[in-house]
Amino acid sequence: MSLDLLIEKIVKTQNPSVVGLDPAVDLIPGFIRKKSYAKHGETLKGAARAVWEFNKGLIDALCEIVPAVKPQSAFYEALGVEGVKTLCKTCEYAKKRGMYVILDGKRGDVGSTASWYASAYLGTVKIGENEYEPFPADALTVNAYLGSDGVKPFIEACGKYDRGVFVLVKTSNPSSGELQDKTADGRAVYEIMGDMCAEWGKNIIGKYGYSGAGAVVGATYPEQIARLRKRLPNTFFLIPGYGAQGGKAEDLAAAFGKDGLGGVVNSSRGIIAAYKNERRGERDYAGAAYRSAVHMRDDIMKRIHKITI
Amino acid sequence: MSLDLLIEKIVKTQNPSVVGLDPAVDLIPGFIRKKSYAKHGETLKGAARAVWEFNKGLIDALCEIVPAVKPQSAFYEALGVEGVKTLCKTCEYAKKRGMYVILDGKRGDVGSTASWYASAYLGTVKIGENEYEPFPADALTVNAYLGSDGVKPFIEACGKYDRGVFVLVKTSNPSSGELQDKTADGRAVYEIMGDMCAEWGKNIIGKYGYSGAGAVVGATYPEQIARLRKRLPNTFFLIPGYGAQGGKAEDLAAAFGKDGLGGVVNSSRGIIAAYKNERRGERDYAGAAYRSAVHMRDDIMKRIHKITI
Repeated sequence: MSLDLLIEKIVKTQNPSVVGLDPAVDLIPGFIRKKSYAKHGETLKGAARAVWEFNKGLIDALCEIVPAVKPQSAFYEALGVEGVKTLCKTCEYAKKRGMYVILDGKRGDVGSTASWYASAYLGTVKIGENEYEPFPADALTVNAYLGSDGVKPFIEACGKYDRGVFVLVKTSNPSSGELQDKTADGRAVYEIMGDMCAEWGKNIIGKYGYSGAGAVVGATYPEQIARLRKRLPNTFFLIPGYGAQGGKAEDLAAAFGKDGLGGVVNSSRGIIAAYKNERRGERDYAGAAYRSAVHMRDDIMKRIHKITI
Repeated sequence: MSLDLLIEKIVKTQNPSVVGLDPAVDLIPGFIRKKSYAKHGETLKGAARAVWEFNKGLIDALCEIVPAVKPQSAFYEALGVEGVKTLCKTCEYAKKRGMYVILDGKRGDVGSTASWYASAYLGTVKIGENEYEPFPADALTVNAYLGSDGVKPFIEACGKYDRGVFVLVKTSNPSSGELQDKTADGRAVYEIMGDMCAEWGKNIIGKYGYSGAGAVVGATYPEQIARLRKRLPNTFFLIPGYGAQGGKAEDLAAAFGKDGLGGVVNSSRGIIAAYKNERRGERDYAGAAYRSAVHMRDDIMKRIHKITI
């Protein structure tokens, strides 16, 4: 019903970071693409299978030192049905290798529809007498512009299946302030959303003090991170925007408490395409990802020191 | 670059309505499910194939009198990869039968990611030397909580591929007001979103005066429909909430101008599960959908009379 499993994996690896599996086709090493295209043609299937090989290599390299992955659904949907198949396999494989899976789908809808998204990503679907897990994720990112009734099915699924959600509160992109920083009744819209997020999570607080309803808070807005940390003591943060988007470790330090808990920091391109910044060549893309993940871990841990529960 | 194609289909059919293809498993007639389960088992595939049969029957029955369908992605994603395959086939088939396809995915993300969603649903993806259309929709619903940079890739795709988007402005659900009705700088959040929507669409206005950036405005909020119609003269409305959710034809009349243009009204369960309210039995589900669609058309047209361009 909470994010306890994620927190335990963070403590075990002493690494509050998550690797974004955002496999834009041009980030996949050429030798993987070439091999897949030779077998499946320059097709959506060929690209989707290349993504699968790429992801598998990354997961194998990272699973011992990084607690979580965050596949970004857009990159898989862009490869059609075959891409979605790879998304599903990636979730399964990452879990099998011991990683926590945050599916970044930013889903959200009216209540009756949201319950189907919740079943798809956080729960089960019943067909006749059988139950299936369509996409076996541990947590899902959720867009709550529609308000409480659109979020409740996700919260219920968190309680029933011991999963988590991360609600978009203050996003990392340059224009996030256009709506999110507007002030209404003395609160910024992102604070209103943060307060709703805390309210939604209040009955699914786990054993380490954090609820199953986490919040997405961008590393690119350090001031807002600090304000939200004070405001939302029981809300765990998913913090995108580190690295390629410009967020620095010192910017996000405020997300973490004295025990080193409080958030998990995402980097995507900075890790999965790290081989492009090395001279060892693309065949060692997984090694480059590993080295970059270690660097990121150390960079963040310099500010946090030790994570304890 | 606009919603012209949708408008032309509305004029041709003299019917400003769209049928929501929200095939919850228990809405599929038993005889279709039984046949599919016999062949594919009580599996996600069995359910997804049943949905496909169901949808095909509905599209065949409705394509001459209803201008558009709106498949709700959640119901397909809940059936996993096989469900997504059915979603793709449904989009293709509806287009082949002459219907306009609004994919209801409520997608939205930071700019670099949103561009992949735009490619997936409104554009093409390049693999090697080939270009593919992963999900051939005519328009996509978009959640713009992230602001302009998350929406621009969709707007660009509308311009480049002659497609449309519908931005969530004032949604039909009971708790939509929690955020959307809050007042900031003298405007409700839904008005701020509406104004942004108009701004995003100002360079993609089609020949009938409406931009490619439409707005989702719930039939359940007649006062807000009227306010938004005055405020956004070049914005076409997608109006959910008619029928099962409680919206009535008189509630949404304000969306339409003297020419009968201005919006397209969605009904899902009220049409696709109409057979449950008839005594002819489930085998005539498509006939029941047809009769219910005619009833809805007449109900709305009583207020609009004639649609002209």
